[in-house]
Amino acid sequence: MARKHDLPLHEVRRYLEPGPVVLVTSCHADERDVMVMGWHTVMEFSPSLIGCVISSANHSHGLIRASGECVINLPTTRQLEAVLGVGSTTGAEIDKFAAFGLTPEASEQVAAPSIRECHAQFECRLHDDSLVGRYDFFIWEVVAARVAPRPRHPETLHYKGDGTFMVSGKVIRRNRAGLK
Amino acid sequence: MARKHDLPLHEVRRYLEPGPVVLVTSCHADERDVMVMGWHTVMEFSPSLIGCVISSANHSHGLIRASGECVINLPTTRQLEAVLGVGSTTGAEIDKFAAFGLTPEASEQVAAPSIRECHAQFECRLHDDSLVGRYDFFIWEVVAARVAPRPRHPETLHYKGDGTFMVSGKVIRRNRAGLK
Repeated sequence: MARKHDLPLHEVRRYLEPGPVVLVTSCHADERDVMVMGWHTVMEFSPSLIGCVISSANHSHGLIRASGECVINLPTTRQLEAVLGVGSTTGAEIDKFAAFGLTPEASEQVAAPSIRECHAQFECRLHDDSLVGRYDFFIWEVVAARVAPRPRHPETLHYKGDGTFMVSGKVIRRNRAGLK
Repeated sequence: MARKHDLPLHEVRRYLEPGPVVLVTSCHADERDVMVMGWHTVMEFSPSLIGCVISSANHSHGLIRASGECVINLPTTRQLEAVLGVGSTTGAEIDKFAAFGLTPEASEQVAAPSIRECHAQFECRLHDDSLVGRYDFFIWEVVAARVAPRPRHPETLHYKGDGTFMVSGKVIRRNRAGLK
């Protein structure tokens, strides 16, 4: 994989707004974990805010709550088997990194590891936890972002439930004044 | 277009979790509007909750805030020109329904109209507005849902910013115990 380069933080939406499943990594004390997440949304360009649901039923929830950090990693179809494996097991029983061939590497701004094999990494610090109690809804500020330079439009996975994924298709560009 | 049928409310995620742009319709008093929205996420299966950012800079914001209702309509590539038109104009100046060939029809549970040409409609009532002041973030409960029976996997539009859309591609099914 080509060396990743820094992405301006207000451009994180280019990768997350289309709605791909992501792999969320976390660590606390001497424990680390990774989970699949499909319930997320961009909330602001600058600061770069992402809102997402991380169920308290997930083993990662405790690590994320305690550390106030995570990394949102963007897998592509190359990581489909890993996504399936991570999504159908629990970190309470196995080390998912080792089990599914995901290489943890040091992040820049947070202690949570990034996944080398993923197309992009968005390092996050907790911005607002006011809806965690009611909805397990976390609002993160992206404090560092790196993406692989190519392909420009990676083949991402979009989850429909029941083991069904939509794979990202063709890209169309239709510039129009007024579109952000 | 084939007649739409009711969708169980906990299955709304099949259409929104993959991350398509949607057309949000609203009305208040004698005014109606439609806007494009890409910043949304599923938050719960049952009740069926959707969180989304509706900027106060958008003309629809006032109608939605005042009525506490909206309809989330799912356009496909057939509505690309309408999506571009709606996203690059303001309802303060024109009737976007008439301008872009979108037919408003009566909804079941809310006063906001649904768009006939769209593949699916999710009628929403305000569930939680505690983050509207800080982030323009609304949490909706879907109270009625209708979808066209075919195609089973409609060709949806996923926004990347700067006039660039990803079109949904192939569908893969990989059932695995433990995947929800």
